[in-house]
Amino acid sequence: MGSIGTQSSIPLGLYLWTRISQLGTQSVMGVPGDMNLELLDYIKEVEGLKWIGNANELNAAYAADGYARVKGCPGVGKLECQINNFTEIETCTVTTTMGVGELSAINGIAGAYTEEVKVVHIVGTTSTEVQAKRLMIHHNLGPSPDHKVFEKISSHVRCAHTWLEDAATAPREIDRVLYECHIKSLPVYIFVPMDYVHVPVSAEPLRSPINFTPAINKANETKVIQKVMGALRNARKPMVLVDCLASRHNARRETNELVCRLGLPAFSTPMGKSIVDETYAQYYGIYNGAVSYPGVQAAVESSDCLLNIGPLLSDSNTGGHSRQIRTEQVILIGSASCSIFGESYSDVYLRPLLQRLLEVIKGAELPVASDLGLPTRPCPEDTDSDLIRQSWIWERLGRFARTGDVLIADSGTAQFGFSDAYFPEQLNYVTQLYFGSIGYSVGACLGAALAQREIGLLNESGPGRTILVVGDGSLQLTVQEIGTMIRLGLKPIIFVINNNGYTIERVIHGPEEAYNDISTWRHQVLLEFFGAKDGRKCSQEVRTKEEMERVLSSHHYVNPTDIQLLEVHMDTLDAPWRLKRQIELINERMAVKKTAKKA
Amino acid sequence: MGSIGTQSSIPLGLYLWTRISQLGTQSVMGVPGDMNLELLDYIKEVEGLKWIGNANELNAAYAADGYARVKGCPGVGKLECQINNFTEIETCTVTTTMGVGELSAINGIAGAYTEEVKVVHIVGTTSTEVQAKRLMIHHNLGPSPDHKVFEKISSHVRCAHTWLEDAATAPREIDRVLYECHIKSLPVYIFVPMDYVHVPVSAEPLRSPINFTPAINKANETKVIQKVMGALRNARKPMVLVDCLASRHNARRETNELVCRLGLPAFSTPMGKSIVDETYAQYYGIYNGAVSYPGVQAAVESSDCLLNIGPLLSDSNTGGHSRQIRTEQVILIGSASCSIFGESYSDVYLRPLLQRLLEVIKGAELPVASDLGLPTRPCPEDTDSDLIRQSWIWERLGRFARTGDVLIADSGTAQFGFSDAYFPEQLNYVTQLYFGSIGYSVGACLGAALAQREIGLLNESGPGRTILVVGDGSLQLTVQEIGTMIRLGLKPIIFVINNNGYTIERVIHGPEEAYNDISTWRHQVLLEFFGAKDGRKCSQEVRTKEEMERVLSSHHYVNPTDIQLLEVHMDTLDAPWRLKRQIELINERMAVKKTAKKA
Repeated sequence: MGSIGTQSSIPLGLYLWTRISQLGTQSVMGVPGDMNLELLDYIKEVEGLKWIGNANELNAAYAADGYARVKGCPGVGKLECQINNFTEIETCTVTTTMGVGELSAINGIAGAYTEEVKVVHIVGTTSTEVQAKRLMIHHNLGPSPDHKVFEKISSHVRCAHTWLEDAATAPREIDRVLYECHIKSLPVYIFVPMDYVHVPVSAEPLRSPINFTPAINKANETKVIQKVMGALRNARKPMVLVDCLASRHNARRETNELVCRLGLPAFSTPMGKSIVDETYAQYYGIYNGAVSYPGVQAAVESSDCLLNIGPLLSDSNTGGHSRQIRTEQVILIGSASCSIFGESYSDVYLRPLLQRLLEVIKGAELPVASDLGLPTRPCPEDTDSDLIRQSWIWERLGRFARTGDVLIADSGTAQFGFSDAYFPEQLNYVTQLYFGSIGYSVGACLGAALAQREIGLLNESGPGRTILVVGDGSLQLTVQEIGTMIRLGLKPIIFVINNNGYTIERVIHGPEEAYNDISTWRHQVLLEFFGAKDGRKCSQEVRTKEEMERVLSSHHYVNPTDIQLLEVHMDTLDAPWRLKRQIELINERMAVKKTAKKA
Repeated sequence: MGSIGTQSSIPLGLYLWTRISQLGTQSVMGVPGDMNLELLDYIKEVEGLKWIGNANELNAAYAADGYARVKGCPGVGKLECQINNFTEIETCTVTTTMGVGELSAINGIAGAYTEEVKVVHIVGTTSTEVQAKRLMIHHNLGPSPDHKVFEKISSHVRCAHTWLEDAATAPREIDRVLYECHIKSLPVYIFVPMDYVHVPVSAEPLRSPINFTPAINKANETKVIQKVMGALRNARKPMVLVDCLASRHNARRETNELVCRLGLPAFSTPMGKSIVDETYAQYYGIYNGAVSYPGVQAAVESSDCLLNIGPLLSDSNTGGHSRQIRTEQVILIGSASCSIFGESYSDVYLRPLLQRLLEVIKGAELPVASDLGLPTRPCPEDTDSDLIRQSWIWERLGRFARTGDVLIADSGTAQFGFSDAYFPEQLNYVTQLYFGSIGYSVGACLGAALAQREIGLLNESGPGRTILVVGDGSLQLTVQEIGTMIRLGLKPIIFVINNNGYTIERVIHGPEEAYNDISTWRHQVLLEFFGAKDGRKCSQEVRTKEEMERVLSSHHYVNPTDIQLLEVHMDTLDAPWRLKRQIELINERMAVKKTAKKA
């Protein structure tokens, strides 16, 4: 707030960026355009705020999403790692130009919407004067264009928006949408007409931060606490199942504390992975309905009191909807509501609820859970292969990962495979399993790496690493963002899984069809093309486990001082068992339906 | 229609692709996804139809746009070039997966919408059963998702759509939206739920092609013909101004015939460039309001009967709205209406109207126009420079281009610069000036090159060339589509204007600002990275006119047998005079308004 000083009014643009900066945002994603240039001028006037400049707007939106997921969310387990500048408000901003930029970004914003990520999309628009005249200014639609039509288009992928076209209300409006963004953990849009960028607005509100307290129904919250405590006391087989909304609603720390204090058996969903410390003695890995290791489904579904924190019940997060947990077994702690064995309570917010629960639990005597005694994991048939197999690589990359790292996985085999891995404590795992937009990971990696650098995640041997795992197919959608990483001096380790096209789709349908093929790129030249200093030296490729082991243990991978790319050649039709199992389940269900129809 | 034979019913998917093929489409753009895979299976069952497979969906949409612009639109001037497989219906199809793919493409579809290009967007969606249950299937939005929400999002960028969820009506529905697409020359959407891909539908309608006759108001058309003929007979200074909708509505041939028969002075707008044969004796170049060569604005605006064919009156196509043509001077021949000195006639369609006009003119005696005697073009101040200057390159590339070539220019300096060039006859110039989405040209180049190969554009020395002119900034948004070109064996000549970032924006605002910088790529490695066989050999860079002349006259550029990339280094702040003039005009207008407000 230094730059505001004692002024009573400041330009609207400066107000906006100052507020954004107060949320903990240090990096602004986006692409410049003639309708946002003057707005961008104010970024450098706010201390600690920096324009990034992405290769395109979709990548920028993905980057904002990745940044927001990491910025406020360091993994917090038993040991505290060194965290500097930690902020609990992990909003990120993407700035585009009306129409062309705005629409190019919309798929990234939709992903943030459906996966509940705090992204602020700021759109520089035509001036209010030409809007009123419906002038045919470039980036508009058709003759006599409605310049606000794009705002209607994005209405489905945001929780709030505002047009800043009134100096008197602009500060209040900015504060309102940022509040909504934070409380709901959903994207918001702020439209800034060119002729309002410089208008003076009151600086007064900036002197105190936005009050991000949600409107909790205290009576409901009290009832929920009582009911949950009662349920835990009476439960014979209480367990915890952690899902992704715990992280999106800023409750990683509370979730871990709760799990430790309760000492209950804990599971993660595929999307919730890495939130709960996986070195916790009673952590049993991934529960994903019928797509789980032997014994897991039966164990979880036998619980009479399953504390399900932050559930998001999409297909691949529930074993293709094979999760069979009855209402009377489960306490669902949602983002703004809670359901206890079927009784629903609204206006009860996830993080404050967990905080209150932690206080109450402190003095409570609760039954101690015993080990579940699950069967050991089955040994894959192809364990002996010298080649890099799907049954091996994910668990191996899990061991490669260290405390303080951020691991980003794209849609495809990686998302299914990583459920087999155990992660170290305080690793941040970023993936987009519900929306499942291929190419997301490359943009998200840029944002994650920036966030990681800003919060200064450290481990015993140095800064946490940014690890990107992307298939050769997904990479093609968003590859140019690697150029931005190089320009900014970021040093991710990029694993390109080269299995000759869209393997996940080949397993679903058309294994030999041409539509699952892709263009053949020379990945060994990628870093050089995008401008890396020693691009060729920093690029390697491996075909065998032995080769990969050698690379993983080399100092460039243990403590990278440059961006690194490892092309991992794998069999075209090799796929994780979880992916194949989920497809089997769906096909079985379809077959049953067809039979039923015929009968 | 060979694959249909005598069958009375065929799978819906096959019906759809057969109809698409009947429109003249041979290449289907898109990205596969699990919700469209089974639909894609039917493509190979239709003779002459081919799946392309793009690097991402935005590029696919741009490619469909470029393809549609070129496919039915060979330049037709005095000499007929050899045109094989010419089709007058230049629809192109892009196929994506619901949600993620669909939204990624929307910006490309919006561009086609605002610039009136025939694109069919086919979206593979979830099955009707899971839609009804609002299941949380991947690619959807939030809990209990409305699977049809994305259809609402695209409602603003299409003229028609259909959900194929009724076997009885599906053929009629497909035919209806394809009719709308063609008649309005606007994008349409076809949504295909997974469970309807294989349902049998009647094959009967396929035995006759869709009747693409518009619903002309014959009385209005007759009146228009009479009025136009009367106006031409009485005019003292009749002239013709050709704009882009003449091409979008398939009337290039008619426009040229009309211009030749009338023998009137003819001008193009920036967007209409290359439609009218520029070697026509009375062609005087570009009219763009106050952003025209000396004498042009005065000449055009002194006409008492300006036949303006296919106008699109956006800012950069009217010299920043400095076009001053009064209603009583102009006959506006729109896509589906006509305005004669202010009197409007609806349901009069551009191409049929020109065809009727041509018939009537045959026997008519009309006054002969004399030469306008415009001043010679001014000589640029930096003509003597050895370096490659904006004042030199566009005119030079115009001379490089040959009959049968397709020339694609991205947003930026090229769009303003090419107004200075004279093109040879039967060149097809593709650019997106109204929507102005940077990066468009790279996707469009792929589509244009495919269309060009299919229609077999030839000139005296071989096949027409595909020439792409793209700035280093615009290139970054969509670069990966060059990999698709290489995979398909296309041989475009790619000029990368390397002026160190977004020069057009530097000229508008913030010449030294970091937000106008971009990542530094090694363009000489681009082709190698994307898989070109002799990528390094096919890549060159030039800094002086002499170097560039040498490259342009080399056999690789005269008759390319491989893809070629020429990196053209130019000064960061050098800009075409037309761009600077338009910005000056806008700034002058703003200054006047500010003064007026103060007074």
